[in-house]
Amino acid sequence: MKIFVYPGSFDPVTNGHLDIINRAARLCDQLIVGVLVNISKKTMFSVDERVELIKKAACGIGNVQVESFSGLLVDWVRIKNADAIIKGLRAVQDFEYELQMADLNKILDPQVETLFMMSSANYSCISSSAVKEIAGMGGSIKEFVPESIINEIMLKCNSK
Amino acid sequence: MKIFVYPGSFDPVTNGHLDIINRAARLCDQLIVGVLVNISKKTMFSVDERVELIKKAACGIGNVQVESFSGLLVDWVRIKNADAIIKGLRAVQDFEYELQMADLNKILDPQVETLFMMSSANYSCISSSAVKEIAGMGGSIKEFVPESIINEIMLKCNSK
Amino acid sequence: MKIFVYPGSFDPVTNGHLDIINRAARLCDQLIVGVLVNISKKTMFSVDERVELIKKAACGIGNVQVESFSGLLVDWVRIKNADAIIKGLRAVQDFEYELQMADLNKILDPQVETLFMMSSANYSCISSSAVKEIAGMGGSIKEFVPESIINEIMLKCNSK
Amino acid sequence: MKIFVYPGSFDPVTNGHLDIINRAARLCDQLIVGVLVNISKKTMFSVDERVELIKKAACGIGNVQVESFSGLLVDWVRIKNADAIIKGLRAVQDFEYELQMADLNKILDPQVETLFMMSSANYSCISSSAVKEIAGMGGSIKEFVPESIINEIMLKCNSK
Amino acid sequence: MKIFVYPGSFDPVTNGHLDIINRAARLCDQLIVGVLVNISKKTMFSVDERVELIKKAACGIGNVQVESFSGLLVDWVRIKNADAIIKGLRAVQDFEYELQMADLNKILDPQVETLFMMSSANYSCISSSAVKEIAGMGGSIKEFVPESIINEIMLKCNSK
Amino acid sequence: MKIFVYPGSFDPVTNGHLDIINRAARLCDQLIVGVLVNISKKTMFSVDERVELIKKAACGIGNVQVESFSGLLVDWVRIKNADAIIKGLRAVQDFEYELQMADLNKILDPQVETLFMMSSANYSCISSSAVKEIAGMGGSIKEFVPESIINEIMLKCNSK
Repeated sequence: MKIFVYPGSFDPVTNGHLDIINRAARLCDQLIVGVLVNISKKTMFSVDERVELIKKAACGIGNVQVESFSGLLVDWVRIKNADAIIKGLRAVQDFEYELQMADLNKILDPQVETLFMMSSANYSCISSSAVKEIAGMGGSIKEFVPESIINEIMLKCNSK
Repeated sequence: MKIFVYPGSFDPVTNGHLDIINRAARLCDQLIVGVLVNISKKTMFSVDERVELIKKAACGIGNVQVESFSGLLVDWVRIKNADAIIKGLRAVQDFEYELQMADLNKILDPQVETLFMMSSANYSCISSSAVKEIAGMGGSIKEFVPESIINEIMLKCNSK
Repeated sequence: MKIFVYPGSFDPVTNGHLDIINRAARLCDQLIVGVLVNISKKTMFSVDERVELIKKAACGIGNVQVESFSGLLVDWVRIKNADAIIKGLRAVQDFEYELQMADLNKILDPQVETLFMMSSANYSCISSSAVKEIAGMGGSIKEFVPESIINEIMLKCNSK
Repeated sequence: MKIFVYPGSFDPVTNGHLDIINRAARLCDQLIVGVLVNISKKTMFSVDERVELIKKAACGIGNVQVESFSGLLVDWVRIKNADAIIKGLRAVQDFEYELQMADLNKILDPQVETLFMMSSANYSCISSSAVKEIAGMGGSIKEFVPESIINEIMLKCNSK
Repeated sequence: MKIFVYPGSFDPVTNGHLDIINRAARLCDQLIVGVLVNISKKTMFSVDERVELIKKAACGIGNVQVESFSGLLVDWVRIKNADAIIKGLRAVQDFEYELQMADLNKILDPQVETLFMMSSANYSCISSSAVKEIAGMGGSIKEFVPESIINEIMLKCNSK
Repeated sequence: MKIFVYPGSFDPVTNGHLDIINRAARLCDQLIVGVLVNISKKTMFSVDERVELIKKAACGIGNVQVESFSGLLVDWVRIKNADAIIKGLRAVQDFEYELQMADLNKILDPQVETLFMMSSANYSCISSSAVKEIAGMGGSIKEFVPESIINEIMLKCNSK
């Protein structure tokens, strides 16, 4: 049985993240989406909200489970008994950053493996921060996030 | 009649921006420089100051007009009835960011077109933030901004 | 009246090229597609064939004209009285190469201007060489080139 | 049961390839290494030699199988009933090329998935062509290929 | 006599910095490590602490001297009578940023020369911010900084 | 006494190369320009011609010496007793290639050090192949190569 983890901030989850979740879930027996609790970085959505949004958006996929975690990623991966970390790559800048992270994690724990998936062409321009910015200016986000969570995001982004 | 818009923060305008304004103005009938009002991002110069600095620096070019705008760029482009957005590219990092922005804008409004110009080799190292940093440390900015606005920038950068 | 030229090898023209032709034609009064005659580089299609394929594929666009040219691009641009060269950008590697070309052309003729358009996300993986390789292995190219020229390309790629 | 394929030219296999084979084999039930038969590209080693060198170098890994294939990769993946293609990434240039290939393959067959692994830092400078060049100039390749195949490579590279 | 300066924030110094210090010291007669005093950027370690950590870590190298400086780098280089600035490059993003800096410095003072060294493969994933983040989460930093300064860094990162 | 070597094909030497030669010569006691004899790669100019062109172009610089070499660069560096290899960087693609070369050379000989200089902005678009192409089409190369060798290059490029 192969377990993959897909970590991130997901502030909030986008169609780009869901594309990775869908495709990664088909390549393993269990996919655990890990929402990072990072006290030093301010998020728009709370950890619980972020977990709930992913659960709502990914509810149709059988072998996906959503959790939050704090501390070092490599420690959480070990606790979860996972075989690999899954990361999405959208652009060269992602590539360089993720290459450094994968190398760092390898030094921290040589057992930890990272697998990358390229974002589908149509989703490679989507990011959580773009979603928040567009929503905050009253633009339509229906091409960027699943329909079931549009309202919650619009509400939050315009209540600030 | 072709109308192009050239959006940016211009905090403050540099010789790199002016190079693009000059070259883009020759390729369209009207070029509208758009100074972005972004309340969530702190700027050193106010919107009015930024508009005035560009007007002063670009005063010799006939078909250029300077305005401020807020909200989504694609909405402003539509209001102005513009045919294309003009952006300058200095480096690979610009390229990736602008590619994502162009793709996002295409999704928000499929009619919106973006055209890119490469910065002239001599200007590709110049950025508004470099100008502010150098001026703030008392360095000379005469190679980086038009002469007519050097004093205003030196004054502002050293009054903080 | 603004004239843009769009130079290339077009060996053969792809949906990616046509996307640029369509979008660029809307931003100028006349778009001249220039097929490069380069005796030192072997092409699969002859110059005449390449010109014909583009004409067939772009026949619905009023202000587009297709020609061949040899020698330095900047010389041809001057002869055509064009205001700018149009180039498509698909990836960071295109960007760097085109930046060098634009700089070189600026040194050869300071009047020559180059404008860049980003490939639409769906077309950014398409290249003439990929089309030839896929066609040569019997794969389907219907997503990569216009329908009206599929047969000619399949024939040529499999007659070798 | 998950099947991954790892395609390439392997002309010849290097420690960088073996690193990917070792790591990928742990993440699936069966890993099929696919040696590409490409008649239009001249290789130093024949297909049979390339297959044999990989078999020799990877003989200790239980769930790895080595084969050759020709034609479109997506067709071979379907025949092998594989769940994903595995590719190694060493640098930004690999990234861009592989992103285009993954997008192309998705258009040719939407079922085909590609997973990427970053080369380990120590192997990211190694390539088959570097091995051939160094060996051909009489340099030592013992840091670049498995010991069991050094002699065969040295012999071949110096018999030309 | 050739003098090189190696400027940076060093907040704190890492094995990656030390690798550059060691290698650069061999290529000149005197290497001056310059710790930047930047009042507009918050650092975890004070200037004095950063200077002390480097001195402790680099104490075995004869021709290395550690100092702090403020203001424009080019001014400090001139005061020190240095022949060149030394910078380490880890990734493409470093490259582009440093290229812009080198060009800016050339405009500010055409006499100033910058030399670059590539980070050794094993150190290219290490950065001061990664060290602080890992230490702050209780991870082990023994692979990332010299042993003699581990305790001081762990103490500081966990006292916040 | 510090000795640097600056290796390359120099087919033919350009103003970009001369810029590096001039700047590097100031940072060491002796700079040895090394013209690579590579029998597997066809050059337009013979080794002797390439050496002569550099000698002619760099004749005013006291501590520069021009030689040819064959075989592994690291072996030649050792024979010359050199302290470092000097390479010029023009773009991200150079950076990645040179990073791999520097890593490879470090494995072949851990004593060998490589130093990089960024091309001056005005020279970063110049390459030997661009010079040959422009000269071959009858364009002017006076901005790209030193005046003293223009005639020889024009003659050679148009005699083919």
